[in-house]
Amino acid sequence: MPDATATMTMDKGLDHTIIGESTKSFIDGQKGVLEYVGIDIDTLARSSTFEETCFLLLNDRLPDAAELDAFTARLRSNYDLSDRMWAAVAALPPEAAPMHVLQTMVAMLALEDPDCDNQSREAEEAKAIRVLGATPAIIANFDRLRRGLEPVRPRGEDNVATSFLRMLTGETPGEASAKALDVCLILHADHGINASTFATMVVMGTESDMYSAITAAIGTLRGPLHGGANERVMYMLQGIGGVGAVEDFVLGRLSRKEKIPGFGHRVYKAIDPRATYLKTFAESIAAETGNEDLFRMSRGIEEIMDAQVGEKGIHPNVDFYSATTYFSLGLAIDLFTPIFAMSRNAGWAAHALERFDDNRLIRPRCQYTGPHGAPYIPMDER
Amino acid sequence: MPDATATMTMDKGLDHTIIGESTKSFIDGQKGVLEYVGIDIDTLARSSTFEETCFLLLNDRLPDAAELDAFTARLRSNYDLSDRMWAAVAALPPEAAPMHVLQTMVAMLALEDPDCDNQSREAEEAKAIRVLGATPAIIANFDRLRRGLEPVRPRGEDNVATSFLRMLTGETPGEASAKALDVCLILHADHGINASTFATMVVMGTESDMYSAITAAIGTLRGPLHGGANERVMYMLQGIGGVGAVEDFVLGRLSRKEKIPGFGHRVYKAIDPRATYLKTFAESIAAETGNEDLFRMSRGIEEIMDAQVGEKGIHPNVDFYSATTYFSLGLAIDLFTPIFAMSRNAGWAAHALERFDDNRLIRPRCQYTGPHGAPYIPMDER
Repeated sequence: MPDATATMTMDKGLDHTIIGESTKSFIDGQKGVLEYVGIDIDTLARSSTFEETCFLLLNDRLPDAAELDAFTARLRSNYDLSDRMWAAVAALPPEAAPMHVLQTMVAMLALEDPDCDNQSREAEEAKAIRVLGATPAIIANFDRLRRGLEPVRPRGEDNVATSFLRMLTGETPGEASAKALDVCLILHADHGINASTFATMVVMGTESDMYSAITAAIGTLRGPLHGGANERVMYMLQGIGGVGAVEDFVLGRLSRKEKIPGFGHRVYKAIDPRATYLKTFAESIAAETGNEDLFRMSRGIEEIMDAQVGEKGIHPNVDFYSATTYFSLGLAIDLFTPIFAMSRNAGWAAHALERFDDNRLIRPRCQYTGPHGAPYIPMDER
Repeated sequence: MPDATATMTMDKGLDHTIIGESTKSFIDGQKGVLEYVGIDIDTLARSSTFEETCFLLLNDRLPDAAELDAFTARLRSNYDLSDRMWAAVAALPPEAAPMHVLQTMVAMLALEDPDCDNQSREAEEAKAIRVLGATPAIIANFDRLRRGLEPVRPRGEDNVATSFLRMLTGETPGEASAKALDVCLILHADHGINASTFATMVVMGTESDMYSAITAAIGTLRGPLHGGANERVMYMLQGIGGVGAVEDFVLGRLSRKEKIPGFGHRVYKAIDPRATYLKTFAESIAAETGNEDLFRMSRGIEEIMDAQVGEKGIHPNVDFYSATTYFSLGLAIDLFTPIFAMSRNAGWAAHALERFDDNRLIRPRCQYTGPHGAPYIPMDER
């Protein structure tokens, strides 16, 4: 509508648009601060658990012991898949991309939920917890099956990180490994209104449902401009070849004005607050799993980058040390982004429910630049 | 980031935001105009075909005869499903909601596309044509299977409308029926940047792919604030009971200030230009299929509404007569929105590719209204 758009503002990336209020996470990129509901991310990584962090994001407060028990039990009751879902996982083409697998299987969860058309607040939250609970079994068992292994069912007594690693490897994970993954899940659980979180808001805006919202978010996270940065870090580390080649590699890239994956962040100009604690984990897990050289390469890159471009505010971000951590944990590189999704489910659900509570249809306009009054020329005159 | 958001604008529904340029469709709600690439929608409905309209939206011009043949052949080569997809359709729970089925199956198309990770313009367009081609078989055969019928494979010589109706009923559709559906597909193929089309842009913004974009769009269209209006029209018509009860029903609703489904439109204040030609089809199909009373009820509602609120700009919209048309064609009411998706695939793909050509990550901010510097209180002190 030409009259209406004349008074409107063009904002192709919504860089200048605030889409609403939120109490979930606060980012101060200049100071290197990330808080979930006011609590510093580094403190949460050191003291909390992924389960408690999920409760925090969904409820805007920490749980007491009984509440945490109840929430955890609810999450665990959703770990296992239905027979139909197990059959669907077994029928997946082994060459499929794991993010597309996750998207398909989360959409499929809706098909057999008898409460799917119940769109109360409680039902939408229950759908979110179902997705949160079922995601680890989907990712881990798709990976097992494509490796020719038998599926492993989740055990109700494991936390999310332990459950995922046990299904993936078929063995009880070491304490340090499970803790490292738990920390990674805490660190990735929310990050303001990023593109995938915004996708959940667009979907919920039409009064659609949580399954549809998270399915859309997974498809959005899949894009290389969003998820996938830690995969690129890992491919870079594998390509360097060894600790001795690090300096030439980094200086060569910088001299050609090429970016180094895992360094710098659109938001953080100070150190990414998620990287600090993760680095110590990356080191211990690498040592425990015989990947010391991988960690030494990472440290080497960081030191050279710090000397070269540290004063420009280019520092390692959360992806840089999560790559080393995930690889040391034995994860296939194409599972890095699905694990990001496994964690971000919490933030997606929290923001989608926040929107549910104060909903508004999201419908921008476009500036029409095509022709007007064009004739329909009959085929024989074209 | 508090400093940045201070200079930003709050726009919760993006009502005041132009998200970019587009050459696809032009809407003038005051004058009741809808054009696809400059060509009036009523002219297209009367003279074009769904296949030609898809080409128009994707290429910004009408095809010549050879181009239309090539495009149609390409579309038809994607009609049939793989053995794995047929097995997946057969394994669907019969009680599933058709929109969730469609979302799951479109996501699944990505899993076995060997070109899925090819993100060239050509590959993304090929993915769109694959979705466009495969959607009718998915919807029609899910409906057959839940009715306990054997699946029916598509025939390569049918156009989309004929193919869909043949699979659905197992019989060659009458010419008028196939033409009516074809007209409905033309009328629903695009409509500016609505919520589902915007969802494709958010997904493509991260350089994700067409399958992910259309999957997100289906989940967005599913919401009752977007798709689903013609389903509500049909439930209303069924609830009235008969032609004689129309007047009391409409006047009763109006006196209670209740809305009448299928009347009025957020954008159109004049007559919805998509309703005009469709009405004549609704009448002929209703007559042909013995649903004259249904059409008489619709006409009756329109006449009373016109007398009562016509001067306020409340007129029947595209959903009003598509409901009668779809019902007369024998379609289950919960297939109305999936058929909307079957058509809107074209617009989704056109806008997603337009964004691909001039991409930008879409990432708004939120106004953080939660606490700062909150302590992590240990569990035993909570």
